[in-house]
Amino acid sequence: MKIAVDVMGGDHAPHEIILGAIKKAKQTDSELILVGDESTIQKELERYVVRLNNISIVHSNEVVEMQESATVALRKKKDSSIVVANQLVKEGKADAVVSCGNTGAQMAAAIFILGRLKDIDRPPIIASVPTINGEDSFLIDVGANVDCKPKQLLQFALLGQVYSSLIKGKSDPTIALLNNGEEEGKGNNQLIETYELFKKQKDLNFIGNIEGRNIFNGKSNVIVCDGFIGNVLLKTIEEMAIMMTDLFKQENNKLPEFLERLDYTKVGGAPLLGIDGISIVGHGSSKREAVFNAIGIAEDCIKKEVVKIQNLALDNSI
Amino acid sequence: MKIAVDVMGGDHAPHEIILGAIKKAKQTDSELILVGDESTIQKELERYVVRLNNISIVHSNEVVEMQESATVALRKKKDSSIVVANQLVKEGKADAVVSCGNTGAQMAAAIFILGRLKDIDRPPIIASVPTINGEDSFLIDVGANVDCKPKQLLQFALLGQVYSSLIKGKSDPTIALLNNGEEEGKGNNQLIETYELFKKQKDLNFIGNIEGRNIFNGKSNVIVCDGFIGNVLLKTIEEMAIMMTDLFKQENNKLPEFLERLDYTKVGGAPLLGIDGISIVGHGSSKREAVFNAIGIAEDCIKKEVVKIQNLALDNSI
Repeated sequence: MKIAVDVMGGDHAPHEIILGAIKKAKQTDSELILVGDESTIQKELERYVVRLNNISIVHSNEVVEMQESATVALRKKKDSSIVVANQLVKEGKADAVVSCGNTGAQMAAAIFILGRLKDIDRPPIIASVPTINGEDSFLIDVGANVDCKPKQLLQFALLGQVYSSLIKGKSDPTIALLNNGEEEGKGNNQLIETYELFKKQKDLNFIGNIEGRNIFNGKSNVIVCDGFIGNVLLKTIEEMAIMMTDLFKQENNKLPEFLERLDYTKVGGAPLLGIDGISIVGHGSSKREAVFNAIGIAEDCIKKEVVKIQNLALDNSI
Repeated sequence: MKIAVDVMGGDHAPHEIILGAIKKAKQTDSELILVGDESTIQKELERYVVRLNNISIVHSNEVVEMQESATVALRKKKDSSIVVANQLVKEGKADAVVSCGNTGAQMAAAIFILGRLKDIDRPPIIASVPTINGEDSFLIDVGANVDCKPKQLLQFALLGQVYSSLIKGKSDPTIALLNNGEEEGKGNNQLIETYELFKKQKDLNFIGNIEGRNIFNGKSNVIVCDGFIGNVLLKTIEEMAIMMTDLFKQENNKLPEFLERLDYTKVGGAPLLGIDGISIVGHGSSKREAVFNAIGIAEDCIKKEVVKIQNLALDNSI
């Protein structure tokens, strides 16, 4: 497996990204292609006296900054690390791309370079959410698309269903809509319309609405929401987890397993679905451990043929 | 001070509501008017051998159920406890109403019985959110209005500003929009338009967008969002707090103060703003302690003349 790592993207790039990749390279047979400024990468590799057969470098001149407008950046910075890394996937020189940089740019690169899968309007990001007494659920979309039409939410549901059953090895995962009440008819106009659409979809194991209080109890395997609320919610959850972890540590306590699982550095990254390639979105604040784990997610997705399986499912359902 | 308590509303009504009111009556000079089925209330008072001068009963025949449609219920159940309790306020027989029942019905009763303040389209619910190192912030709206226009969000901001400065005794509290990024131009269409509107409002100490990760660090005194996201977010936060409290207790640890402050039973209730009366929305799951504290919030709002101050502020600003 070959994985292109955008070492220039992220709050702690390139240093922490490179260190995460080095750590991973020592433990995997996959080939890691570090994309970014060659001399910087070279220096880091020398500094840590790293000569690994499974690390190579592809040079790129430019960087898309974290807060830059994605569409402008993609148009202007043709030689940015995120563009070059995605091109490696497009050209078959890599099997997946991992980036902790500008999410909008990563999404735009996925759309314009890798391309969308059949009948998918907008690629969503799917994140795992630990549950208190069992396996993770998935929240989709957690940040890629802030204004979503009901039919796009349906696409997210179908992609989430495929991904969840593929990763968890369980057929027919349950799908719910995140809402402000459980009863049918609850929610804003967008949600009420979406509920109707989900109900009509025969091959969707739709169990109705769930509230914020039920995110962590495994009530649904897949929880669908638009990327605006998904983003606000995930960031709030992450921050609460960080605060709670600090509070536990202040008391010198062993960290509960649930809090460990809420730690985004342990999760590493979240896949972009609905695109013709594997693209893993790492947290902007990622340090080496998160990068290490994000590359692991990329390996999982390659092994499990995420793109092929999505294609098969879309052929059958939309 | 006279406070009408809807003892029939809530998951644990009437038993726990009555017990909360009894506990409060023992500690306050306020008169508590218990609104609901007289014989039920009478029996509970006798069961606990309560003869308090400051508890009285106003009988009502009907109950609006938790999941009932608010508008239908209000039209059909003219003698429901929530309607009767609001009428007591309207007629000057009570200074505030407290209910842990159907939020939609409470809001509809506030609109149709108490009436809205000048230029307010929809009354929002304001909830306090503890911060890790200081005084609480406020989140508005947390559940009353799922589809909000930018001008309604501006009304929420103005009401939140008034309430925050009144409760915290601090002039010119900061106001932020909850968004998926901090930069101007972030967010869905609704938020982008709202940002422009907030910027133009001269008497608003608008500090821009904040993300989910900044809810708990006091970055803004007031955080404005629509009631859909506010509801989902608040329920998620509450549930996480409950889980974390359990985890701390399993380890036999002293609960961190921050978690204590996240406990909704300690907070008690959240005021409906923008209406011509004081109406406190208690949590549907409230037991006696939450009811006790919700009545305390009503007392605060009466003492601080929340309605008069809102009116003054609205005269000057909208």
